[in-house]
Amino acid sequence: MTRKYNFSAGPAALPDQVLQQAQAELADWQGKGLSIMEMSHRSDEFVSVATAAEQDLRDLMQIPDHYKVLFLQGGATSQFGMIPMNLLGQKTQADYINTGIWSKKAIAEAKRYAQVNVVASTEAENFTRVPRADELNLSAEAAYLHYTSNETIGGLEFDYIPDAGQTPLVVDMSSDILSQPVEVSRFGLIYAGAQKNIGPAGLTVVIVREDLLGQALPTTPTMYDYKVHADADSMHNTPPTFAWYLAGLVFKWLKAQGGVEGIAEINLRKARKLYAAIDASDFYANPIALPNRSIMNVPFTLADTQLESRFLVEAEAAGLLNLQGHRSVGGMRASIYNAVSETAVEALIEFMQHFEKTRA
Amino acid sequence: MTRKYNFSAGPAALPDQVLQQAQAELADWQGKGLSIMEMSHRSDEFVSVATAAEQDLRDLMQIPDHYKVLFLQGGATSQFGMIPMNLLGQKTQADYINTGIWSKKAIAEAKRYAQVNVVASTEAENFTRVPRADELNLSAEAAYLHYTSNETIGGLEFDYIPDAGQTPLVVDMSSDILSQPVEVSRFGLIYAGAQKNIGPAGLTVVIVREDLLGQALPTTPTMYDYKVHADADSMHNTPPTFAWYLAGLVFKWLKAQGGVEGIAEINLRKARKLYAAIDASDFYANPIALPNRSIMNVPFTLADTQLESRFLVEAEAAGLLNLQGHRSVGGMRASIYNAVSETAVEALIEFMQHFEKTRA
Repeated sequence: MTRKYNFSAGPAALPDQVLQQAQAELADWQGKGLSIMEMSHRSDEFVSVATAAEQDLRDLMQIPDHYKVLFLQGGATSQFGMIPMNLLGQKTQADYINTGIWSKKAIAEAKRYAQVNVVASTEAENFTRVPRADELNLSAEAAYLHYTSNETIGGLEFDYIPDAGQTPLVVDMSSDILSQPVEVSRFGLIYAGAQKNIGPAGLTVVIVREDLLGQALPTTPTMYDYKVHADADSMHNTPPTFAWYLAGLVFKWLKAQGGVEGIAEINLRKARKLYAAIDASDFYANPIALPNRSIMNVPFTLADTQLESRFLVEAEAAGLLNLQGHRSVGGMRASIYNAVSETAVEALIEFMQHFEKTRA
Repeated sequence: MTRKYNFSAGPAALPDQVLQQAQAELADWQGKGLSIMEMSHRSDEFVSVATAAEQDLRDLMQIPDHYKVLFLQGGATSQFGMIPMNLLGQKTQADYINTGIWSKKAIAEAKRYAQVNVVASTEAENFTRVPRADELNLSAEAAYLHYTSNETIGGLEFDYIPDAGQTPLVVDMSSDILSQPVEVSRFGLIYAGAQKNIGPAGLTVVIVREDLLGQALPTTPTMYDYKVHADADSMHNTPPTFAWYLAGLVFKWLKAQGGVEGIAEINLRKARKLYAAIDASDFYANPIALPNRSIMNVPFTLADTQLESRFLVEAEAAGLLNLQGHRSVGGMRASIYNAVSETAVEALIEFMQHFEKTRA
């Protein structure tokens, strides 16, 4: 078996050690004679796995006690609807910051339930920076302020937490959760699809302040009501048990890396090296304003776009997988999530420099 | 590694061969250098896996071309809301047959969107039989007729397909899909949570007649709209890729067992043997009318309920796992899905007879 370097934007690379453990115990979990995925979610064994996963996430993010942690299905795209349905309450308006493709998707779905105020957008600048704090034109009547802390496709990341005053702050943290420390108490609700920094696709983590629960719109499907899941410890119905288990293994792995603080140092080093290599060359380019460059998703273009397919073929031959940019924007993109090692990033840089030399 | 006999109601046993293959290629799928769960759902590799899984399911169930097959998240419990939101159209009423706990859950959620007509119920008889065809008091104004083909908790299974005339028939087949041949064209919509006969928890299969799509209520969340998923081949957003892949392995395994026809013969033999053992004894009992006894879930009681915990302890020591009845009803339950071998059922019968002898 040869594991290659995987720069997929999601579903994304998982830590080798996590996959090794999952593989070793796949058909016989801890000598119990069956797979973890063949167990009732209400069995003592699975409940212990689920509880430990939640506790480890709480430890890693220092989540205060008055926040619920939910393990749900449906992806961030389901959250786009769940958020207005759960948080509007008696209000009819919500504020959204537009920083790219994922913000826009969240806005489009919210418009089906609320009057959406786009309180800032950098679309006119082709989303090459995030709006400054002084550009946010917040509404007094908004039920919440929503933003996307990291745009996975654009490679654009907030370098500050917006201040919405008493208005609950809601963040789509799908592609940068657990990548660096964040003060949870600044938020009303944090959500993240698992398939970048948490685990496999099919799991969505929601961290929500308790006082925001219990005001879902009357048409909200039961499975869209956060309170139902909060009251049932995310076991109102059968949860995605294997994904939850794997997330738990990832959390334990992350603790062993020194937690979020430890991984953040590595992440910053990885990103700095890669951006430095891009900036040092006229052959590669990244258009994002320096303070807003994502430390997780690094899109870059080749000066000669004719060479793109050649770049991808040779990268793959060199064991560097999934460097193609999103189909909506083209170019290249290296997603360098927690599970992508510094060695992988160094191998990518070396390949890029070699590719440039042979083509320049 | 010793695999034990697992009678869990769900998440339930998976075929040994499926787990072996998944284990062997968990960290390196077909020599590609990464796990199937680390691949983009839009990669050629995953799309080929997803497409093959759908085709194999179509082959197994002989699904006509004018039916869409959807691979969704959220479990049958999400379907309880999606069905009225998608199928009511201009109508306001829906017919439901009540045969137990799962029917009731479907009814409760539907009531939030429709006037529900319970067109037949055997609750007065403690759900020991399903209503006869001549007992169904169907409404002319119903958008659809819903029933639960197999009540997982009660161990009650329809021995016929209700005839609703031109009204679309909707069935929750979560716990008996693929257990025996069924004529898909009799139905408007078939749905099933994966975690019994299909794969791991976190995946829900929906088979829906095309002409029923495109009439979702205006308040329906985008992710609750079947048409959105149908138009996007279940990739409107990131699907639960690993669960989908595993379902595909299960479908291939099922084909190797002679398909649904082949497994049905085995299933019938397993069920007949187990019910025969129960009926042959005064020590064990099953209350369900003979024609409606489930071939998938076999609940049984001990004449002396004091012996229940002893039974479970000794069964587990004998390598027979998860025989406890559902927490809402108590007693015992052996779920003998497709992946539970005839050998496992024989071992259970032998244990039951031994236990009875030593206690009688």
